[in-house]
Amino acid sequence: MKTVQVGVAVIGAGTAGLAAYRAAKATGASVTIIEGGVYGTTCARVVGMPRKFLLAAADAAHAICKASGFGIYGIGKIRLDGRAVMERVRRERDRFVGFVLRDMENIPAADRMLGHARFIDNQSLDVGGHTRLTAKSVVIATGSRADIPEMFMALDERLIINDDVFNWRDLPKSVAVIGSGIIGLELGQALHRLGVRVVLLGRGGGVGPISDPEILSYAITTFNQEFMLDPDAHLIAAERNGARVVIRRTDASGAEVSDDFDYVLAATGRTPNVSRLGLDQTTLKLDAKGVPRFDPATMRTLAMDGDSPVFIAGDASNFIPLLHEATCEGGTAGDNAARLALGQQVRHGLRPAPLGIVFTDPGIGIVGGGYRAMKAETFAVGQASFEDQGRARILLRNKGLLNVYGDLATGQFLGAEMLAPAAEHLSHLLAWALQNKMTIAQMLEMPFYHPVLEEGLRTALGNIPIRAH
Amino acid sequence: MKTVQVGVAVIGAGTAGLAAYRAAKATGASVTIIEGGVYGTTCARVVGMPRKFLLAAADAAHAICKASGFGIYGIGKIRLDGRAVMERVRRERDRFVGFVLRDMENIPAADRMLGHARFIDNQSLDVGGHTRLTAKSVVIATGSRADIPEMFMALDERLIINDDVFNWRDLPKSVAVIGSGIIGLELGQALHRLGVRVVLLGRGGGVGPISDPEILSYAITTFNQEFMLDPDAHLIAAERNGARVVIRRTDASGAEVSDDFDYVLAATGRTPNVSRLGLDQTTLKLDAKGVPRFDPATMRTLAMDGDSPVFIAGDASNFIPLLHEATCEGGTAGDNAARLALGQQVRHGLRPAPLGIVFTDPGIGIVGGGYRAMKAETFAVGQASFEDQGRARILLRNKGLLNVYGDLATGQFLGAEMLAPAAEHLSHLLAWALQNKMTIAQMLEMPFYHPVLEEGLRTALGNIPIRAH
Repeated sequence: MKTVQVGVAVIGAGTAGLAAYRAAKATGASVTIIEGGVYGTTCARVVGMPRKFLLAAADAAHAICKASGFGIYGIGKIRLDGRAVMERVRRERDRFVGFVLRDMENIPAADRMLGHARFIDNQSLDVGGHTRLTAKSVVIATGSRADIPEMFMALDERLIINDDVFNWRDLPKSVAVIGSGIIGLELGQALHRLGVRVVLLGRGGGVGPISDPEILSYAITTFNQEFMLDPDAHLIAAERNGARVVIRRTDASGAEVSDDFDYVLAATGRTPNVSRLGLDQTTLKLDAKGVPRFDPATMRTLAMDGDSPVFIAGDASNFIPLLHEATCEGGTAGDNAARLALGQQVRHGLRPAPLGIVFTDPGIGIVGGGYRAMKAETFAVGQASFEDQGRARILLRNKGLLNVYGDLATGQFLGAEMLAPAAEHLSHLLAWALQNKMTIAQMLEMPFYHPVLEEGLRTALGNIPIRAH
Repeated sequence: MKTVQVGVAVIGAGTAGLAAYRAAKATGASVTIIEGGVYGTTCARVVGMPRKFLLAAADAAHAICKASGFGIYGIGKIRLDGRAVMERVRRERDRFVGFVLRDMENIPAADRMLGHARFIDNQSLDVGGHTRLTAKSVVIATGSRADIPEMFMALDERLIINDDVFNWRDLPKSVAVIGSGIIGLELGQALHRLGVRVVLLGRGGGVGPISDPEILSYAITTFNQEFMLDPDAHLIAAERNGARVVIRRTDASGAEVSDDFDYVLAATGRTPNVSRLGLDQTTLKLDAKGVPRFDPATMRTLAMDGDSPVFIAGDASNFIPLLHEATCEGGTAGDNAARLALGQQVRHGLRPAPLGIVFTDPGIGIVGGGYRAMKAETFAVGQASFEDQGRARILLRNKGLLNVYGDLATGQFLGAEMLAPAAEHLSHLLAWALQNKMTIAQMLEMPFYHPVLEEGLRTALGNIPIRAH
């Protein structure tokens, strides 16, 4: 077994790992990045980008159905070429993964190491059984993998986890989507709009990242106008019946309902990839899921005996599994790991204003952590509906509800939750306002063109019952 | 003739007039609002909103043509029902005008006066020949009307000014659109996408409000991929030939080109409605077009002999003919007119960061006055193309170019010009950043989700060759 010494070791070459590598290199430290599996980030390869391509196709199909509202009619039926749709998704996915691979290839060969990494102690790793890598500091950026509930294990090739969808050569006729989180919602709506019969079954009543009861209730109603969404379904069993899958569940009245599908798509959450890292050989404090505890300001993990030389970033941290957060966290972890290796103090990294987006239509936007982050009796709510909003009506996209939150004492803008047209854009505007620590009064003095969806924001802001400051 | 005395007289009940009325009333002053013609704002009734409905229908038709890129095909041809399209445009226009009329009806009858207003002197108006209205201060908010060049006068009912388009019962086969400003561009593209053969002929080389030569050149190329746009056409004549109109012009090579159309649509600018106000009876300083000179900070006009009791707002001022600016100007003019009537000092009104949007596809966005407002050698440019931008590619909307401007000395963000997908949203984000006086470095620390069009902004900002501040 070879022995190698390095300043910083980065485990994982996904979004967070690559960001950590670049940040550490920028300080002048010596860095090795270790990749155990397939190259390519989770976002590009598996979870994020391919789904967006599927959604874009789905929205294009939906737009055709809606065109009659403008006086435009398709002669006869629209023909949806499932093979062509899926082919574009795969082609574009491969293209995006290609960019990521090129990023990886741009890293000097001397800085890269292939093999599965396991901790020997806090500062030593066994890489692929061939190398003992000793580092002054280590960054864990091993990402996450899809959870598969026990109940579905026997479904074999009729069980699809989100990664598999994109390998379909054609679209199936019917799919039960299990899980009403971000992935389940986006995939469920996309497949529905592409002509697949979709039943979306969640657990616990949640819909994506929504926490505001008014927005939640509006979202459940709205999505149910398109396809069946039960965010609190009670599954009894999922069983093979020849080539099909039978799902048995109890409905709201307690009666048993049985329904069969071509596939079950499990979108039931993701688990950080930490179980095979040999963390038991370290002195790190672990949470119930086996994930090292850490300080989100510095991304430094905590050891039993005090400070630790190990940092963590991205999905592996189980903190905020979003690409732009993974990039920031990776940057912070890499920078601090290098600083530690160079004998400098670690420092607080950049953490942008919290922003969550679900690319459904209408979209979901959560700014500042949303309703769940508000402290009771310190905030007021302003609301706007998009059902009669001018621009939304023009575009025949007049479905949506927005709640914005303001601080009763200071008049500051605190955050928002929305199901709204162009949620991805409206949420950026609000997230930037939050990071700029703007007051509601200042926001109301900003330019609002006419006619635009942003005028809906103004309505909501103007409805917050607090005095101008 | 009746004689009436009032604190503030507002001439015109459009967007600016209604805003002025409300602002003046809010101070406690006595106010009379005078409307001479048809109720309803220029934006709702004539220029802004109906065009947006036509554009929405056009974009829906265009989306169907593009759907094959996603693997979605219409069987046979799409049938576009011109009557249904135009009916929706009219129905929605009438609905929006209805809102405006309701606004007007909510004004107490005692505060309203009908009739054409003419100045007798700086503080007295003849209203409809029936009333002499004496006011401590006056707000001119009489709006604008379409210009019609002499050359087209003989075309009779084959000449369409933008207002007339919305009275079409069906769509014509071909239209020559004269003028490549905002109205010509929006209408030209909308008609083209609705299946009308469109030739768009401008004068002087300009395209909408674009002043950055790179964005201009990109826009000319891009629009020409859809329909013929000559921003610097040389017209020889426009003549009737039976039911048709023949347009003769010289092309770039100097050769004469003759082409015939169902209609000529003149979108050749608008003129402030000031010629019939009897301004010669006042002591106001007038510009070459007969528009009173004024201070844009207070909206107070200038008299030969010093301070004037007359204010001006909206399109009548010939300053920035945009609804949201008219609202701000109306508020400032009304507030200051009332303050003057009550013996108080006038003050600077709210003027939001300059923001211009053209609702074509891709859209045009001008922030901070754009390139023309930059001072030579004090700024640097950062550029991003949307042709290979991730989100734009996903949506098959990957056409666009963005230039952002930063101050070389301070690192501050100064403005932007773009032809870009979702320009209406990206421009708001940038305009708010401008009004917040953000530096480029601060903007780069803001949240950018993934995958979103806003990442294109980040690329451009990151490309500005100035040191971070």
